[in-house]
Amino acid sequence: MAASAILFITLAFLNCIRFSLAFDPRPLQDICVAPALGLATSTCKDPRLVTANDFYMTGLDRPGPFNAYGVTFVVASVPTMPGLNTQGQLFLRAELAPNGYFPPHIHPRASELTYVMEGAVEVGFVTSFPDYKYYSKVLNKGDAFIFPVGLVHTVQNVARGKSVTTSSLNSQNPGFIFLPDSLYAAKPPINSSYLARASKLDENTVKYLQTKMWFG
Amino acid sequence: MAASAILFITLAFLNCIRFSLAFDPRPLQDICVAPALGLATSTCKDPRLVTANDFYMTGLDRPGPFNAYGVTFVVASVPTMPGLNTQGQLFLRAELAPNGYFPPHIHPRASELTYVMEGAVEVGFVTSFPDYKYYSKVLNKGDAFIFPVGLVHTVQNVARGKSVTTSSLNSQNPGFIFLPDSLYAAKPPINSSYLARASKLDENTVKYLQTKMWFG
Amino acid sequence: MAASAILFITLAFLNCIRFSLAFDPRPLQDICVAPALGLATSTCKDPRLVTANDFYMTGLDRPGPFNAYGVTFVVASVPTMPGLNTQGQLFLRAELAPNGYFPPHIHPRASELTYVMEGAVEVGFVTSFPDYKYYSKVLNKGDAFIFPVGLVHTVQNVARGKSVTTSSLNSQNPGFIFLPDSLYAAKPPINSSYLARASKLDENTVKYLQTKMWFG
Amino acid sequence: MAASAILFITLAFLNCIRFSLAFDPRPLQDICVAPALGLATSTCKDPRLVTANDFYMTGLDRPGPFNAYGVTFVVASVPTMPGLNTQGQLFLRAELAPNGYFPPHIHPRASELTYVMEGAVEVGFVTSFPDYKYYSKVLNKGDAFIFPVGLVHTVQNVARGKSVTTSSLNSQNPGFIFLPDSLYAAKPPINSSYLARASKLDENTVKYLQTKMWFG
Amino acid sequence: MAASAILFITLAFLNCIRFSLAFDPRPLQDICVAPALGLATSTCKDPRLVTANDFYMTGLDRPGPFNAYGVTFVVASVPTMPGLNTQGQLFLRAELAPNGYFPPHIHPRASELTYVMEGAVEVGFVTSFPDYKYYSKVLNKGDAFIFPVGLVHTVQNVARGKSVTTSSLNSQNPGFIFLPDSLYAAKPPINSSYLARASKLDENTVKYLQTKMWFG
Amino acid sequence: MAASAILFITLAFLNCIRFSLAFDPRPLQDICVAPALGLATSTCKDPRLVTANDFYMTGLDRPGPFNAYGVTFVVASVPTMPGLNTQGQLFLRAELAPNGYFPPHIHPRASELTYVMEGAVEVGFVTSFPDYKYYSKVLNKGDAFIFPVGLVHTVQNVARGKSVTTSSLNSQNPGFIFLPDSLYAAKPPINSSYLARASKLDENTVKYLQTKMWFG
Repeated sequence: MAASAILFITLAFLNCIRFSLAFDPRPLQDICVAPALGLATSTCKDPRLVTANDFYMTGLDRPGPFNAYGVTFVVASVPTMPGLNTQGQLFLRAELAPNGYFPPHIHPRASELTYVMEGAVEVGFVTSFPDYKYYSKVLNKGDAFIFPVGLVHTVQNVARGKSVTTSSLNSQNPGFIFLPDSLYAAKPPINSSYLARASKLDENTVKYLQTKMWFG
Repeated sequence: MAASAILFITLAFLNCIRFSLAFDPRPLQDICVAPALGLATSTCKDPRLVTANDFYMTGLDRPGPFNAYGVTFVVASVPTMPGLNTQGQLFLRAELAPNGYFPPHIHPRASELTYVMEGAVEVGFVTSFPDYKYYSKVLNKGDAFIFPVGLVHTVQNVARGKSVTTSSLNSQNPGFIFLPDSLYAAKPPINSSYLARASKLDENTVKYLQTKMWFG
Repeated sequence: MAASAILFITLAFLNCIRFSLAFDPRPLQDICVAPALGLATSTCKDPRLVTANDFYMTGLDRPGPFNAYGVTFVVASVPTMPGLNTQGQLFLRAELAPNGYFPPHIHPRASELTYVMEGAVEVGFVTSFPDYKYYSKVLNKGDAFIFPVGLVHTVQNVARGKSVTTSSLNSQNPGFIFLPDSLYAAKPPINSSYLARASKLDENTVKYLQTKMWFG
Repeated sequence: MAASAILFITLAFLNCIRFSLAFDPRPLQDICVAPALGLATSTCKDPRLVTANDFYMTGLDRPGPFNAYGVTFVVASVPTMPGLNTQGQLFLRAELAPNGYFPPHIHPRASELTYVMEGAVEVGFVTSFPDYKYYSKVLNKGDAFIFPVGLVHTVQNVARGKSVTTSSLNSQNPGFIFLPDSLYAAKPPINSSYLARASKLDENTVKYLQTKMWFG
Repeated sequence: MAASAILFITLAFLNCIRFSLAFDPRPLQDICVAPALGLATSTCKDPRLVTANDFYMTGLDRPGPFNAYGVTFVVASVPTMPGLNTQGQLFLRAELAPNGYFPPHIHPRASELTYVMEGAVEVGFVTSFPDYKYYSKVLNKGDAFIFPVGLVHTVQNVARGKSVTTSSLNSQNPGFIFLPDSLYAAKPPINSSYLARASKLDENTVKYLQTKMWFG
Repeated sequence: MAASAILFITLAFLNCIRFSLAFDPRPLQDICVAPALGLATSTCKDPRLVTANDFYMTGLDRPGPFNAYGVTFVVASVPTMPGLNTQGQLFLRAELAPNGYFPPHIHPRASELTYVMEGAVEVGFVTSFPDYKYYSKVLNKGDAFIFPVGLVHTVQNVARGKSVTTSSLNSQNPGFIFLPDSLYAAKPPINSSYLARASKLDENTVKYLQTKMWFG
């Protein structure tokens, strides 16, 4: 039997095994506020200096201008809300211009729950090899959707006007891997001949893509 | 030295130990949709029957009428969004009438990030014995706040009109322990003499409290 | 449907999901003795300076005088037994005078197993919202009882004389949240009008309670 | 400040926080052999029926013919070695023909350690947004390399003849997400207009790519 | 450099890395009582059938007669206290006759805290290869000692009369591996020539040891 | 009933409980390269100084001379491959001379998957008390075997010539406890009278064994 067939069966089987396991956060103390950058001589901020502001953040509804992809957003994470440290969460509020979108991406360390505050977005995610099943849905105001941890997912504005969403991720550092950005924006560049074969594109196209500005 | 003094020093020391640890979710497969209640012959729903609707929920912005505490909310959790199973999250959108409030409560299995969509709420949390330090803050539209896992926290509407918030919890089953409800609403009731002494109230007051309707 | 009814159903369902999951401790090295307070320039004590005394503690059976609640106890924890660091345990031996008791409390980060060495104690715990089911039992010499992690539990001496118990907690820093202490002893105080409404007491009673000495 | 700049700073900061955390496997019993597929009435195979063969597998050095990418491999995983269940590992031995390669891919649930038994391979991985730093290396016989968990990585044969490698992954179900395969092979297909914009390709090229056979 | 020297340095280095990591228990629901053996059609006992007795056990102070090693003990574990399921603990009370002892043993899944209720015991543990450092201590009434997870440890009565101890382990199934029992009591027997060489004993001695009754 | 019989039943029951749980590694950042020994002022190496060499190691196929047990090996671990830090793996390639063997040993923090590159080895493992079941198998070239975490296991060359194997362990610091080495090589020595009784050997034999050179 061909190796790929064996792998196919192997992975198909693995996806059928029925676990129902989730890990939730478990710090070993009540709070551990991240110390100011550049002053990190210890792991947590001196408790005597902690204030309610360490657990607080303002301005999530005042993002900057749209980027080239038609999106703008503000993130509540350890740098902007130091009390999030050890609490296993990151939160963001995004606005998408008409036709705005997030390119496909993966969070290797978190699931993401999206809630639509305004407008309408089409979302979806792709299961891993060999199924590559694409589950997608149009979300309207008041709808929510869960992107499972570690899977490629898509978000595009399908409203006439702007859409506004919130995203809840269950890691303080979920990681963002945009696709195909990480293939073409890698520094130093990945070998273009290899990328061309893997992408089924000619090498000149790959070299051209490697000169482009990607999501950021 | 008195036992209480020893414990005080012991716990104060523990709170000074500097950890920076967080656990994030880690299922062992891409997805594991919860099977329909009553049909749970296996741990995950048959993958061939899974659809995008399993990861989706509508109506978070259409809660029912306010309860006696002046709050109403809709929850995205495994029963209403079966694809949340193993993904380590629960999400809710709440509305608080003028003077509405959530009584003090604890989530033993999750931290909670609150975002204010509309209005203004006063929030706070109390660290554990022996510090009992209360960190509180008024949040306005566009503000966010993190309640650390396992600590008593408070939420009260301080706007003239209603307030609207979202809550992101990083467990699919965070647990809700309202206070002092769990002392007085326990079934069968906790010994009223014991409760009176622990609460520093007379026993008749405790017996009266044990007849009241609590948050629900 | 009312929000509270929806939450009730949601949580009742969650309590029916059948998990059988426990996390046990897993350090990444044999031992990591906590360094002396004030000398914590690294995370573990220099292994060359570690002795058997770091894993040892004496005097658990020689507690101080009873406190106002009629209890006294000695704790084996990282400050008193530095080798406990990373080993996921805390242990205490308590004595309860006639009528002595621990007020209701929660350990957000540990389950607790109690063993009765002498006397008799009545113990119990309350499950979380919305069930609030109270499981209680009188324990005699030679009996043991498990308090599940994160739940409100009660301990009262019911012997004519003193009782002696041991408690095993499976976290090196389980946290102690006494109730209703954390509501009334918080510093600065929680808004008394809010507390009065949540506690179904008049505000003057709350203000009075906020002046009292609580467990310690 | 633009949203993307804020996110850049946020994520750059996150990457600087210095954790040194790893989770290792922790089953709750000695062994839990996976039951035969179709007979899974319980979670572990009846211990009385377990034999040494459950922990054993042969033929890792006898893979089938090369696939279209010039690779062939045999996997030791739960389906082929049932005793691997709960032990947190998957292992494979691969052969790469001259010019053979694995397309870029991610294991969302495992790190991978590659060892070169024969030949020479060029390997590399890309860190996440916004750094996209590419660390690559040519490995010769007797060399090893670690691919961190959840990151895009590349493997290409650079020997004149075939190369032989082993891969150790620290999850029993690490997941394989090949790139750009999961974008173009998703079923049903992802909207081609969206993919074209995200990939910076014209829509006809995307539609053409969506008809191709991908890694398998 | 010789392989053993390299391993020595490697492991010595690993033991110097300074982690301060502990995992504590985290079930995903309040309680999950183990169902009766033979009736285990689901993972937790039907909550409607749960009683306080599920969390309770009596008779820990009434052990049977001493075994051949001069020890006797009673264990609170899932079979005797079903509510322990998912709570991450096991507890035992032991009595040691004069000269009684536990042979050296390992708990692969738990640390153990021993408390001396009566008498005096000599305890110790050995760190792993290549240090093999032995930390030992005589414990008297009221003393406690922590055995780190996964290390060989020893317990011997050194009182004139009997000694009584309690042991708290932070796993519901810690595992017991007695030494050298597991070498000689294995069924079928381990090859005696191999064992003789590994034990630096002649093969006849090994064969003789393989016929003996070991701890139990 | 005798205590040992009760424990037997207790543990037999525990081995029947059917969990299917595995923990996989989960760092909180992409990479965290271990800093050079002696320069460890922070937990991870400065990311600007990280190079591909940190994730790379050469010479696994060039071990030193055989030791007294007829084995030699090279280890990829944090000291030799600093990028392994937080990635939850350790890897080694071993050569066994004719009649070479590893003495029985335990890895308290990892399972081990062995692959045979050349020759033939007999391997086995012993389950914990009270079963002590020995599962063994002769492995030939191309075969693999999994040793469950925390169990005593054996490896002996049974080929006429040398054998070559690889071992994959799913912890960056799995721990090595050789048997009976840790009983006799402990420093300071374990009481010889106690060891003699536990080993069922006369005390002079034990004292002699305590003078020998053990595996290293």
